[in-house]
Amino acid sequence: MVKIAGGFGASELFQFLRDGEPRTRAELAQLTGLARSTISLRIDELLEHGLVTPVGEAVSTGGRPPAQIALNPGARVVVAADLGATHGRVAITDLSGTVLRSVFEDLVIDNGPEVVLDWLVLTINRLMVECDRPISDLVAVGIGLPGPVEHESGRPTNPPIMPGWDGYDVPAHMRRTFSVPILVDNDVNIMALGERAMGWPDADNIIFVKVSTGIGLGIIGGGVLQRGAQGIAGDIGHVKIPRGAGVVCKCGNEGCLEAIAGSPAIIADLRGIGRDITTVAELVALVKSGDTSAIQAVRQAGRDIGEVLTVCVSIINPSVITIGGALAQAGEHIIAGVREVVYSRSTPFAAEHLSIVQSRAGEMAGVAGASIMAIERALSPEGIEGIGA
Amino acid sequence: MVKIAGGFGASELFQFLRDGEPRTRAELAQLTGLARSTISLRIDELLEHGLVTPVGEAVSTGGRPPAQIALNPGARVVVAADLGATHGRVAITDLSGTVLRSVFEDLVIDNGPEVVLDWLVLTINRLMVECDRPISDLVAVGIGLPGPVEHESGRPTNPPIMPGWDGYDVPAHMRRTFSVPILVDNDVNIMALGERAMGWPDADNIIFVKVSTGIGLGIIGGGVLQRGAQGIAGDIGHVKIPRGAGVVCKCGNEGCLEAIAGSPAIIADLRGIGRDITTVAELVALVKSGDTSAIQAVRQAGRDIGEVLTVCVSIINPSVITIGGALAQAGEHIIAGVREVVYSRSTPFAAEHLSIVQSRAGEMAGVAGASIMAIERALSPEGIEGIGA
Repeated sequence: MVKIAGGFGASELFQFLRDGEPRTRAELAQLTGLARSTISLRIDELLEHGLVTPVGEAVSTGGRPPAQIALNPGARVVVAADLGATHGRVAITDLSGTVLRSVFEDLVIDNGPEVVLDWLVLTINRLMVECDRPISDLVAVGIGLPGPVEHESGRPTNPPIMPGWDGYDVPAHMRRTFSVPILVDNDVNIMALGERAMGWPDADNIIFVKVSTGIGLGIIGGGVLQRGAQGIAGDIGHVKIPRGAGVVCKCGNEGCLEAIAGSPAIIADLRGIGRDITTVAELVALVKSGDTSAIQAVRQAGRDIGEVLTVCVSIINPSVITIGGALAQAGEHIIAGVREVVYSRSTPFAAEHLSIVQSRAGEMAGVAGASIMAIERALSPEGIEGIGA
Repeated sequence: MVKIAGGFGASELFQFLRDGEPRTRAELAQLTGLARSTISLRIDELLEHGLVTPVGEAVSTGGRPPAQIALNPGARVVVAADLGATHGRVAITDLSGTVLRSVFEDLVIDNGPEVVLDWLVLTINRLMVECDRPISDLVAVGIGLPGPVEHESGRPTNPPIMPGWDGYDVPAHMRRTFSVPILVDNDVNIMALGERAMGWPDADNIIFVKVSTGIGLGIIGGGVLQRGAQGIAGDIGHVKIPRGAGVVCKCGNEGCLEAIAGSPAIIADLRGIGRDITTVAELVALVKSGDTSAIQAVRQAGRDIGEVLTVCVSIINPSVITIGGALAQAGEHIIAGVREVVYSRSTPFAAEHLSIVQSRAGEMAGVAGASIMAIERALSPEGIEGIGA
């Protein structure tokens, strides 16, 4: 059973409309487990706003053929924004999540919410013009930020790398310009949503690992994104690992995973033995060039991450662990390290059914997830109320 | 928002009927987020079977006063069975989860499913007679077993301590006698459900820790019990901990948590220094008598469990960790050890909002959870279909 977030009724329905296949109301009731009356109510709302359309004729066992319904993906659009520490990717997508237009630009999250969100507003307006869509076609905005977010309110909470953002009302800022639902979440969470949609639609227990400057997890458990009590579920960067003994992390503690296996640590180690690199991209290039020290360093980072993931496997019992983030571009070496540790340490029963693989969604995971988060809200009963007919 | 399992509509409704408070359909629609039409459909079904009753008159702003609905807890009963390795607790409860009659008896799970389940059938029949209820009043049976269970099918999967049970169709066996829904789950999972219902109804992210011969977690995340891909989420007994180096576990690996901090390990250590104990109950009594070595051993077990729970806190971000199971009867000493490690190692933000406390449900956690699991299914649309009017 496929569910993404806490909406009642609408999200389950959306899951089965999203693939674009025409289905009858009876089929949708069966697939979602919702009552026929509930399905009809939802479909009528969606029809009224042109978000779904009746199509063709279904084969019936007699009498009037039951009408099929399909998503009308072009009826409206959403914004999907994946904002990182130093770059942002912003896309306009249709209601099936297909990207109509996107940009990838430098940004400095440290400039604070006013500057960054004003840039986002301008970028959205520009992309809408380039798509030739009026602003009235926009039905929701999904935003991922590189820090913990209280999803209900859309406010960052104690973000370690985002000075000025703590408690900032991101939705209120965006609604000055766009009077539509504004959904905000942690970047790793939206990546997990995107990874699942693009790569593993049938898996209900997935761990998405982002490996870059920071190391974090996006966790889907029982088909639902797990945010935790304060929105910091999956925040494993400061778990203590054995190899970290004596290494002080910028958080003040000793032995944190991020301080050993994050890209700054790997880059510093390689610089220490004479490699002239400063960015993750350069590290990835060095690994791809076949530099043995770089390959060994990245593989060891995979082992370190595997130490923590082994515990995650016992706790979450996932069927898939998928590795993404900038450092995952270094290819199989990180994954080889992760597998080495996780498969040898997990119980045979848990390991037997577990795939550990590279992200299928790649660098588009974030915008794919932000788009899904936005579309789901737009098509929910509460979202539809706000859409003009 | 409170949800226990994957049912659509019914479980949310049940959550707000369970407390026995009368509510109008409008109030129930608002509380659950379900459509008015869906609520009316469900309430009509429940009324038809006498499972809810109209009560009193609500204050209205004018016109006909809207009818209030309340659960009719005595209308039907369920069975709640919490089967352990050597004992079983079986209860008949009403639809509010109130225990009408219960027994706590020795049983040997190693005798295999035929013997144990035949005993359960006899016990249920006896308890129903003692309650003076006909078998036709029984609407569902919830069973917890001391091993991993595939919840959908009700079959144990690779249970380490239950010879003969692997893959056994528990629901089919029970349905030979009782033609009602039979729900089966791991004992720690039902304890987590019971603990939440009895102690933390408003918390959506809870870890229940069972500390006894084995050590395991029942995890509620985003308001929903997390079972994982193979039903073994929370199975932390074989996570490797630093203090375990060189200690071989019965699973064949080295350094497993259970091999260090499970009650057999603690008892063996204490016997090694001359304490004459063999059971968990004797260990608990020794701790309560003030034996310093026993107190130190139990506190150290708490620290060892805390090592793994620290990682759980980073992954799950719970608001509550609650410690139950036979060894938790030893009082504050285990919890002191857990707190010592978890609070010093977790990030300040995660630790600030985290309570680590003794189980509130105590030894009744299992039957409380099995009862909830059974009632929820009985009151679901699919459960109601099977109930005679």
